[in-house]
Amino acid sequence: MKDLVAELREAIGAEKVLSSPVDLIAYSFDGTFEQHAPDAVVLPETDEDIVAVVKVASRLEVPIVPRGMSSGLAGGAIPFSGGIVLSLTRMNRILEIDGENMIVTVQAGVVTADLQAEVEKLGLFYPPDPSSNKQSTIGGNIACNAGGPRCLKYGVTGDYVMGLTVVLSDGQVLVTGGKTIKNVVGYDLTSLFVGSEGTLGIITQALLRLVAKPKCVRTALAEFPSLDDASRTVNVILSAGIVPATLELMDETATVCIEEAMHLGLPLDVEAMLIVETDGSDEEGVVREIEAAARICRENGAREVKVARDEAERTTLWKARRSVSPSLARKAPNKLGEDITVPRSAIPEAIRRIKAISAKYGLPIVIFGHAGDGNLHPNVLFDRRDSEQWEKVQRIVGEVFQVALDLGGTLSGEHGVGTFKLPYIEQALGPTSVDVQRCVKQALDPHSILNPGKVLPAI
Amino acid sequence: MKDLVAELREAIGAEKVLSSPVDLIAYSFDGTFEQHAPDAVVLPETDEDIVAVVKVASRLEVPIVPRGMSSGLAGGAIPFSGGIVLSLTRMNRILEIDGENMIVTVQAGVVTADLQAEVEKLGLFYPPDPSSNKQSTIGGNIACNAGGPRCLKYGVTGDYVMGLTVVLSDGQVLVTGGKTIKNVVGYDLTSLFVGSEGTLGIITQALLRLVAKPKCVRTALAEFPSLDDASRTVNVILSAGIVPATLELMDETATVCIEEAMHLGLPLDVEAMLIVETDGSDEEGVVREIEAAARICRENGAREVKVARDEAERTTLWKARRSVSPSLARKAPNKLGEDITVPRSAIPEAIRRIKAISAKYGLPIVIFGHAGDGNLHPNVLFDRRDSEQWEKVQRIVGEVFQVALDLGGTLSGEHGVGTFKLPYIEQALGPTSVDVQRCVKQALDPHSILNPGKVLPAI
Repeated sequence: MKDLVAELREAIGAEKVLSSPVDLIAYSFDGTFEQHAPDAVVLPETDEDIVAVVKVASRLEVPIVPRGMSSGLAGGAIPFSGGIVLSLTRMNRILEIDGENMIVTVQAGVVTADLQAEVEKLGLFYPPDPSSNKQSTIGGNIACNAGGPRCLKYGVTGDYVMGLTVVLSDGQVLVTGGKTIKNVVGYDLTSLFVGSEGTLGIITQALLRLVAKPKCVRTALAEFPSLDDASRTVNVILSAGIVPATLELMDETATVCIEEAMHLGLPLDVEAMLIVETDGSDEEGVVREIEAAARICRENGAREVKVARDEAERTTLWKARRSVSPSLARKAPNKLGEDITVPRSAIPEAIRRIKAISAKYGLPIVIFGHAGDGNLHPNVLFDRRDSEQWEKVQRIVGEVFQVALDLGGTLSGEHGVGTFKLPYIEQALGPTSVDVQRCVKQALDPHSILNPGKVLPAI
Repeated sequence: MKDLVAELREAIGAEKVLSSPVDLIAYSFDGTFEQHAPDAVVLPETDEDIVAVVKVASRLEVPIVPRGMSSGLAGGAIPFSGGIVLSLTRMNRILEIDGENMIVTVQAGVVTADLQAEVEKLGLFYPPDPSSNKQSTIGGNIACNAGGPRCLKYGVTGDYVMGLTVVLSDGQVLVTGGKTIKNVVGYDLTSLFVGSEGTLGIITQALLRLVAKPKCVRTALAEFPSLDDASRTVNVILSAGIVPATLELMDETATVCIEEAMHLGLPLDVEAMLIVETDGSDEEGVVREIEAAARICRENGAREVKVARDEAERTTLWKARRSVSPSLARKAPNKLGEDITVPRSAIPEAIRRIKAISAKYGLPIVIFGHAGDGNLHPNVLFDRRDSEQWEKVQRIVGEVFQVALDLGGTLSGEHGVGTFKLPYIEQALGPTSVDVQRCVKQALDPHSILNPGKVLPAI
């Protein structure tokens, strides 16, 4: 692959091309436990650099795997076929914050939390909040259509993307959308690239819609002796016309893991906890909404509901939810976090079935997630070094996906397909959908240069 | 075309095929002043009927123009190349209202207002409210990504589409999406069909997201001596964190037209009026929001702000806005209603420039629309029988589009491209976008059977 590296250096300058073994290993991972080294890493600084890289890749028939900070959880940014990893991290400028139109223009490599901090200084707010937001980039968030707890009220990343700049597989630069809130001129190409995981084009720039920063927030933590009651309560709250910013569920196993790690005084004898948060510009309304939600929790089986009275109390309540992932590390060397979604009404049944799978295989499965969205993160705890456990994990994943599909749900709400979910995609979507998606991929990337082998299974 | 009619009768039954001259003329119109008769009309009752029609059309290489109630305003449902008009109006059943998950499953031919009335009986709410909603169908709304006044707070039709059933050009039946709120498995095919105006597939069924019906609504009408002040106020309201359900603007000409027709006591000496409506489940919050909006109007130049105190007063306030279109009919035999969108901040400049165009050509242009969205409906009033006026209208339309594009806007916020905006689409989107859209069209409809000559200009 010396030719590749030499050609890339010539095309965009040696200082933007990495090829030492150490560098290649550094760019071989994502947020999972898989890895595969690329043949070269490029760190473009402009669209022109990316166009030049695409042309080299095209001529040499070498894959390009675009990535942000590679915090993905589905193997989407791992260069399993080698080739070029194209990291957008040097393109990390906020180009414009248009306060009047409440729109920000950013390069793809901006870290999401950095963007959020900048716009909040001006009283504006970018709601999508994947838990990776201090690491992950806007470009990666868009490529995976990232979610987060606040998406219940505010919607996912795609709901904020008003336009994109995308380098296509033939080196053309496509600009979609614009600063208009409504736009029905031609096909919705913006949405086609959102969630396409780098397989249709390389997103280099985005126009993102902002909202006014909520002036106040109220948070409640409800303890439910019965998981069924907790799940039902989610729907009662939403049916009452309350639209919480977040409505999160943690099961007994999650609560016990957190308490063992953090000693927050969480109850060890409840089947579930709900975290409800309301926000808005009208303090009295926000307070009334959280009180209504708390009352509904009590009326539907909550043993205790704590409403935070200030920011310090709120931070304590969130500490529990935020500690789930790190707490699990104490229980087992590895965890595999899934991301199924089901219709909201099916949450209790989904959790019951997943717990039965856990019992059947004798491996703990911790369940938490965005209950208001029907988006659950079952995390299997295991030891990868134990081949028997690893084999069980793979069977568990298949059965968990089957639960989601049987209940009218699907394989992923936030993480995407990557490579991890490829074996299940035809079952989830049906052969016609896979056919149509292949037609779209073929139309936009006829030589399969862009992140090949991701999203769609090879024919 | 006797073969065509005979083949269609054989394929789906004679009672579902129309071919008399009277019937063909009835299906030759849309909501504009253009018309062209098809060679046959089919009234399918099932997906299987539609698959059979697609196969006949494919074999005979005859175009299919799908339509709902053909209330479109861009020529999208007019069969300019003849062929088959496929009307979805017999497929008009509401198949399921899933209250727990707040999702309705409908056939494409359901009239939007009928759907809204049914779900509201259960305390649910389908927000998108194109002004055609008593006539237009959900399928047509989806194919055009219809908007309406309430879209400021609630979003457009596409924001409510969770899944579709689509008959493709090769006769395959594609099912997209599902009852899960989040779904990132594969490309977003649902969004690709939303707004595709029948050119990529025939939408036969949809899963639509519902919300809880707002328990209360408050409406205010503000009179602004200065149009600039009115436009600026739109942004001040939104920046304050108030999210009105609607925020509508009517210019002086619109107000005068309505007053002449309806005698509602509207002021004839103000440059603009704003209608602001807030809604929600928390009455005190809704009241406080409308009062805050009214205060902002007063602080920013409104001469008078009336807040409706009951439903009767609210109806009176809305009567003005709802009367715009019918009132215009008294002023001139024809009107051509455009649908440009601009970034919100550009509304005052857009209106100034459009008024200059009106003065230049000596034809009245009435301006009203969804100011909160930056979506304006400039309506040119004219007499189609006067060829000189008609020629002026065509030049006016070109110049109005140029205003939108020069200000960072686009050609359509709600009506779509159809055929009327074809000459301007490349200028609006750029050649790369048109190329990519052609690739998508070619991938999904390689023989260009589906609504050919719409959305994309012929090569």
